[in-house]
Amino acid sequence: MTSPAFILVTPQMGENIGAAARVMGNFGLPDLRVVDPRDGWPNLKAESVAVGSPVLKNATLTYTLDDAIGNLTRIYATTARPRGMEKRVLTPREAMAEARAATEAGEAVGILFGGEKSGLPNEAVSGADAIITLPVERDFSSLNLAQTVGVLAYEWRAGDPAPDDFEPVSDPASKADMERLYDHFIEELDRAGFFHPPEKTPLMVNNLRAALARARFTEQEARTFRGAIKALALGRGKARIVRED
Amino acid sequence: MTSPAFILVTPQMGENIGAAARVMGNFGLPDLRVVDPRDGWPNLKAESVAVGSPVLKNATLTYTLDDAIGNLTRIYATTARPRGMEKRVLTPREAMAEARAATEAGEAVGILFGGEKSGLPNEAVSGADAIITLPVERDFSSLNLAQTVGVLAYEWRAGDPAPDDFEPVSDPASKADMERLYDHFIEELDRAGFFHPPEKTPLMVNNLRAALARARFTEQEARTFRGAIKALALGRGKARIVRED
Repeated sequence: MTSPAFILVTPQMGENIGAAARVMGNFGLPDLRVVDPRDGWPNLKAESVAVGSPVLKNATLTYTLDDAIGNLTRIYATTARPRGMEKRVLTPREAMAEARAATEAGEAVGILFGGEKSGLPNEAVSGADAIITLPVERDFSSLNLAQTVGVLAYEWRAGDPAPDDFEPVSDPASKADMERLYDHFIEELDRAGFFHPPEKTPLMVNNLRAALARARFTEQEARTFRGAIKALALGRGKARIVRED
Repeated sequence: MTSPAFILVTPQMGENIGAAARVMGNFGLPDLRVVDPRDGWPNLKAESVAVGSPVLKNATLTYTLDDAIGNLTRIYATTARPRGMEKRVLTPREAMAEARAATEAGEAVGILFGGEKSGLPNEAVSGADAIITLPVERDFSSLNLAQTVGVLAYEWRAGDPAPDDFEPVSDPASKADMERLYDHFIEELDRAGFFHPPEKTPLMVNNLRAALARARFTEQEARTFRGAIKALALGRGKARIVRED
């Protein structure tokens, strides 16, 4: 990949999908991925508004976010709302300069955009490497989806240099690896009775995801960590057996 | 004025007017001016798409461009097409940094946006202080009007510092002064048989406008220049009388 994928997560209006595809075409971003759009696929309104953008013709449809991001190694989540997660918050310019540096270092980068009604789900944000927040007015902050895409596409094209402190990770874990790791970790914690009280489970899960996402594991580290989880789970089982004896 | 006016010149689709008003509201730009919109005013589609943006409610309607820009002293024209005029070409970022510096120096700044079909008329571009061109793909260059507004509004908000070489003009001529000057100059030149062959008149007029616009006259200079035109015209009349005697 020589440019980031833009991923629309459960978008509602075809007009916005089409306008996103059009402006991505204007600014030279070919890789649009659409996750579970409300009105199905293909979408005639999207086609009408895209005015022949090749980006819409080549867009990828998936039914889950995991399928859309599996082959990526670095993800930015656009969100206006602070989510109470420990996560870097970048401007569009900072994020796209970093995305450029990461792409040039061989990473596969994606930018997540939430649907019109409720934005990105918490688990999409918690797994991201950083948050992008646009500098909007507090009292009139709701940006149109395609405008958000337009600003990010423009910033990609504007081509700012990489930040001085950017350090590429070599052989970064893919998001598919990371999702498997999170699932495994959460599952074993759940078995061990870690999530308590139950109503706090989603919050605890997202805090754990956010904490691990910050580590930016390599492929090898992700494998090692999964081995560690397995060992702890088995050890716990053994310990219980010992106690039960 | 503490921020630039955004001026939509003969826009066609209410959706785009509304989307422009919405994104201007998002990025804190209150002054929208709409020149001779195709579908009249008020526009229900614009209202629907603006989702309550106060910018649309407070928008100004005029029937001519001159009425929309008369009280401004500095204008930027957004246009993709090179017009063969000697005119500075800026990126959105450069333009908005300069606009900020000019605003802080007390100037009244406007940004012109052309209609969907054919963009800005040549005379709007020729009278502008500089051109803004967005960095689009050559083969898919047609940006949606509201996206263009969005990128410029975003760049205003991003708040880059003024360029080092910015030099404010004190007491700059208003665009109303300048339009009167151009009209006077062209009228006298026309009387003097300057425009020849006739089919080249529009091109010659726009080249003269562009050349004078670059000078960035003060109010006093604009008055002096009009006096000079008058003197030449009267002198010419006298010379002719002498010859005819």
